[in-house]
Amino acid sequence: MDQQLLLLLLDLTGTFAFALNGALTAIRAVRVDIVGVIALGMITAMGGGVIRDVMLNLSPATFQDWRYLAVAAVGALIAFAFGNSLVRLSTPIEVLDAVGLSFFAITGAIKAVEFGLGPVQAIILGTITAVGGGTLRDALLGRVPSVLSDGLYAVPAFIGAGLAVIASLFGLYGPVTAVVAAAVCFLIRVLGLHFSWNAPVPREWKRRGTGSSSRD
Amino acid sequence: MDQQLLLLLLDLTGTFAFALNGALTAIRAVRVDIVGVIALGMITAMGGGVIRDVMLNLSPATFQDWRYLAVAAVGALIAFAFGNSLVRLSTPIEVLDAVGLSFFAITGAIKAVEFGLGPVQAIILGTITAVGGGTLRDALLGRVPSVLSDGLYAVPAFIGAGLAVIASLFGLYGPVTAVVAAAVCFLIRVLGLHFSWNAPVPREWKRRGTGSSSRD
Amino acid sequence: MDQQLLLLLLDLTGTFAFALNGALTAIRAVRVDIVGVIALGMITAMGGGVIRDVMLNLSPATFQDWRYLAVAAVGALIAFAFGNSLVRLSTPIEVLDAVGLSFFAITGAIKAVEFGLGPVQAIILGTITAVGGGTLRDALLGRVPSVLSDGLYAVPAFIGAGLAVIASLFGLYGPVTAVVAAAVCFLIRVLGLHFSWNAPVPREWKRRGTGSSSRD
Repeated sequence: MDQQLLLLLLDLTGTFAFALNGALTAIRAVRVDIVGVIALGMITAMGGGVIRDVMLNLSPATFQDWRYLAVAAVGALIAFAFGNSLVRLSTPIEVLDAVGLSFFAITGAIKAVEFGLGPVQAIILGTITAVGGGTLRDALLGRVPSVLSDGLYAVPAFIGAGLAVIASLFGLYGPVTAVVAAAVCFLIRVLGLHFSWNAPVPREWKRRGTGSSSRD
Repeated sequence: MDQQLLLLLLDLTGTFAFALNGALTAIRAVRVDIVGVIALGMITAMGGGVIRDVMLNLSPATFQDWRYLAVAAVGALIAFAFGNSLVRLSTPIEVLDAVGLSFFAITGAIKAVEFGLGPVQAIILGTITAVGGGTLRDALLGRVPSVLSDGLYAVPAFIGAGLAVIASLFGLYGPVTAVVAAAVCFLIRVLGLHFSWNAPVPREWKRRGTGSSSRD
Repeated sequence: MDQQLLLLLLDLTGTFAFALNGALTAIRAVRVDIVGVIALGMITAMGGGVIRDVMLNLSPATFQDWRYLAVAAVGALIAFAFGNSLVRLSTPIEVLDAVGLSFFAITGAIKAVEFGLGPVQAIILGTITAVGGGTLRDALLGRVPSVLSDGLYAVPAFIGAGLAVIASLFGLYGPVTAVVAAAVCFLIRVLGLHFSWNAPVPREWKRRGTGSSSRD
């Protein structure tokens, strides 16, 4: 199997996982019909890449490639058809989602480097590629995007994107360093899930305790 | 009356209806002042076209044409001035809104075809043109976009865009097929409203019944 | 101090104030961690300029300049570190925020003029530059953007942008008129805050009174 095909397969795997996970989140959160489930699944899967390409002033690439559209639609349809009977598969789905996170962060950051952005901007854009779709989905569901309160989602993406960008600064970016960067992101994400790691919260929220979310 | 003028008039009619309807929805849903009513009316009327043009990597066209801005602003101002006394006009307003939906779906899809997108992408982009403005408005109002749970809003747009794209694939797109595609979209929408048709919902929501929207 | 440097300093001051204010708003409104505080602060500071540049079909400029990123990140981090102990500084922070509002409205409108937009579009785009970041932040926080119900935020931006665009139409735009336009915007904003001015609201909300926000 050649390299290009491997990259495509990983990218499509991430797209599938994001669409499945995004559609399931939507089904659990609010009453949506089949149009809403498919729309939210596809937005979760492709939203990050679209934001990245808009920020790079490009036509969104994944949107123009029918394979991404098809894989995202299938992921969302599976969520629609099987819904909560997929709950017992939540661990494998989260692992697949972590694959998508890792892969999108690295490819997003490198695409930004290739289009001439500075290293910090490229790392931010890689992170946005990874977390942007879920953020759009949550905004449409009328809830605070989970990435804003679940630091161990954006942080591994940021670190993975950072490793890839540093490698590219030293002319070392290639299949091996890409896989290493993605693996580091993946490991932090999966360990963070397993051990329920959290990023620091503002002092006043520490005082208020962790279980509640109040709005004033 | 020549053809170009007819198209422009239909497009402006849709813009007016979307702005009026969008502003009324905003007034009913939350406390907004005149700035919010005008902003939400104009976003409803022009948001779909802006998203389409951003996805095509173009400068948003309707935003640059003062006639669309003026018509959208007038529609929103009428909603502000007359507010709930327009309630008894809700049927004509919904019919005008269906005109806008039909027209935006077809012109959006054809613009995407002209800029070289594949047929599936063009149909999706036509649908986004038709429903994007209302989706943005609802996201800003902090509620789940009605298009995600009211399938008979996106579905007719999708079908109308699909007919227009199929016609263009066979080289048959022109004023007649455009009107036919728009009429099919319009009829499905209006019949759907009249008979309260719904798109399928996920099984678990069927079990929970239809009247409630819970969040967990 | 030369002129270019003065403009840059004012622009960075606005960016800092928007990031600080945006991050504080986020901390008070919902439970977010350090990732969320920084993300929301930076989105508040840079979102308006990004929307403007996307509407002009440009690569977002502030995003590509590390100085804006750095200043925005520092503003958000200060909010994270000191949180509610900054409450007694709310007046100076609001004054700084009004500086940002004034400056972003004028520079945004003039950038739109330079890229060939009509005067009305340029005024709207200047206003969007000034209020867009806060709008995005509020949409992500799941609440109705305060700009939609607090007219004395968008209105001074609109007036300031209008003065700058009118000056440019007569070939009079320069440092002096820019400062005058920004000062008018700033004064209206600060006086509006001091005297709690409001823009008109729809009649039915007047009837319902001012203190409540109901959703139906």
